[in-house]
Amino acid sequence: MGKTRLEAFSDGVLAIIITIMVLELKVPHGATLDTLAPLVPVLLSYVLSFLYVGIYWNNHHHMLHTCKHVTGGILWANLHLLFWLSLLPFVTGWMGENHFAALPSAVYGVVLLAAAIAYFVLQQRIIASQGPHSALRHAIGSDWKGKLSPVLYVAGIGLTFVNATLGQALYVVVALLWLIPDRRIERSLHGTT
Amino acid sequence: MGKTRLEAFSDGVLAIIITIMVLELKVPHGATLDTLAPLVPVLLSYVLSFLYVGIYWNNHHHMLHTCKHVTGGILWANLHLLFWLSLLPFVTGWMGENHFAALPSAVYGVVLLAAAIAYFVLQQRIIASQGPHSALRHAIGSDWKGKLSPVLYVAGIGLTFVNATLGQALYVVVALLWLIPDRRIERSLHGTT
Amino acid sequence: MGKTRLEAFSDGVLAIIITIMVLELKVPHGATLDTLAPLVPVLLSYVLSFLYVGIYWNNHHHMLHTCKHVTGGILWANLHLLFWLSLLPFVTGWMGENHFAALPSAVYGVVLLAAAIAYFVLQQRIIASQGPHSALRHAIGSDWKGKLSPVLYVAGIGLTFVNATLGQALYVVVALLWLIPDRRIERSLHGTT
Amino acid sequence: MGKTRLEAFSDGVLAIIITIMVLELKVPHGATLDTLAPLVPVLLSYVLSFLYVGIYWNNHHHMLHTCKHVTGGILWANLHLLFWLSLLPFVTGWMGENHFAALPSAVYGVVLLAAAIAYFVLQQRIIASQGPHSALRHAIGSDWKGKLSPVLYVAGIGLTFVNATLGQALYVVVALLWLIPDRRIERSLHGTT
Repeated sequence: MGKTRLEAFSDGVLAIIITIMVLELKVPHGATLDTLAPLVPVLLSYVLSFLYVGIYWNNHHHMLHTCKHVTGGILWANLHLLFWLSLLPFVTGWMGENHFAALPSAVYGVVLLAAAIAYFVLQQRIIASQGPHSALRHAIGSDWKGKLSPVLYVAGIGLTFVNATLGQALYVVVALLWLIPDRRIERSLHGTT
Repeated sequence: MGKTRLEAFSDGVLAIIITIMVLELKVPHGATLDTLAPLVPVLLSYVLSFLYVGIYWNNHHHMLHTCKHVTGGILWANLHLLFWLSLLPFVTGWMGENHFAALPSAVYGVVLLAAAIAYFVLQQRIIASQGPHSALRHAIGSDWKGKLSPVLYVAGIGLTFVNATLGQALYVVVALLWLIPDRRIERSLHGTT
Repeated sequence: MGKTRLEAFSDGVLAIIITIMVLELKVPHGATLDTLAPLVPVLLSYVLSFLYVGIYWNNHHHMLHTCKHVTGGILWANLHLLFWLSLLPFVTGWMGENHFAALPSAVYGVVLLAAAIAYFVLQQRIIASQGPHSALRHAIGSDWKGKLSPVLYVAGIGLTFVNATLGQALYVVVALLWLIPDRRIERSLHGTT
Repeated sequence: MGKTRLEAFSDGVLAIIITIMVLELKVPHGATLDTLAPLVPVLLSYVLSFLYVGIYWNNHHHMLHTCKHVTGGILWANLHLLFWLSLLPFVTGWMGENHFAALPSAVYGVVLLAAAIAYFVLQQRIIASQGPHSALRHAIGSDWKGKLSPVLYVAGIGLTFVNATLGQALYVVVALLWLIPDRRIERSLHGTT
């Protein structure tokens, strides 16, 4: 089975997720700056989630580049990842509308953590399907980003109950960590071609 | 006529259906666990519908894999299937917001039943278009899953009025039945290649 | 310039239009049949609009099949068509929520009429771009459906103010007229190949 | 890395942006012309934004046509552009619902300005990736439209506080400026082939 439709479907879902998040920015009923002010935290949470969906799309793109055959297991691992990412608009809106309160920030981190685990599972499925000389396993190397992120999410979730801002700062740190495009796979592929 | 645009359009509609369902998870107005509690049934119904759309996408993917020519009949049978699936966000929200009450659960089952029948009609259209040596007919074999599912949906719809939970359990059973990826077509295609 | 992205973009917009229309089916606040009853006209107007978007997607598909080069004029004529179709969710919801009252039904017809004119303009643009031996001009022949539809829409719009049901019936008649798949282009292409 | 998925993802996001903007046209609760009247400014702002998204899609299409390799920098410059365009539904709704009041009109201009800058950055990234004989640099020539637009946006933003209508008129002027399809790249490509 080819991967074209898997990519097309994933692109479609990610494009919709990234765009419907903006619907949580409800149009205010006045035309003054005062009416815009309460939307600032919603906008900030939107920016963070936009970055995360962009990062996932980017890395997903790179990862599937190494994948030739799509098995049933890969299909479902991919849907599992999309499920957690589909909850981002909800937790983004909840965190933004409550001005980054502790509990919504923690739940936001839980969704990020679950998505990271789902991404890891998908990665393992693809590696397993590629056999002993997996191009993806070679490409990700030590995968220190993939291993560090869940640890930082868990730390962030815990921190939100001590100081919500510190916890959110950790989520931003992980985003910045990934924002640097994942050149590992690119390099590795170039190295072998 | 090629099938590329049929697949692209179906993928688009399914990607949107699976994603807008999450809009029924309305962002609550408080930041406490209490405000999240009423959303649990909505989340559960979302998970079930997400599974169903994933299953339909997966099987649709396999089925069209065997299809070379797209006739007008296939186009409309496909739109008919998408129509019933497009009602899933509505019935999912209605069932979830009413905490799995009897009537919404029954109506949810009716939409699942109608989608199953529409899928069967589309399958027959493709088989008919393939002539006597239809690859799809060969691939689905006895199609026991396709034949059992409508029976279980009807049983589930009836059961919701006796005990709503039992009826819903049957819907979950059908989803699990299909969750096991449909290897019949894969195997059959491998066998002939 | 190729037509792949034009098709992909149009498919995307049509897939979103056909799906977000269902968001006008607002989830009711009760779990009884009474709460569902007011939604019946909204559902009926959704079915009619779903048919129309399906017909436009189907015919658009056929028309672009004959088109090799996409000019700037074709691009904008296509966006013009998508603009009018993008108003369908609004007029569908308005007509449905007002139980097919006269004015919303007339406005619904105006949008159908504008979309039909936009489709005709797009068709002419493609024919003009194909030169004297246009495959599309040959394929559509007398184009009696394309010429009759606007007349019936105008009649329907006028009739809604006399008897709303009669006007709506005319819209249904036009849909049924087109529902019969447009075999003219298929046949013509087969005849020349 | 190929550009297929970049185009598909961008097309998806732009198709969703152009379509969800229509959701700001809330279905009114009556069936008379009076209930439709307050929607006229929302419709007008929708038309303007529809034009802008159409222009961006069109130009994006042309620009990527000259682009062979997609670097990490291009990917993120593209997401940056999509981010600003994703705010269009919000500012369109805000401007329309407040009947083109000064502040919403100015904020609308700020989003147009930010999108124009993001488009310019993306263009520079692609030119840089193409080396000294960049096909895109050759194609855009003096890029007078790209250079004039931000100046007109800034003038328009300033003008909204003096006379909102004048400011909005400038936004319309920029749209009309671009509505004339960008034949520069087409010509340049034809000239070299």
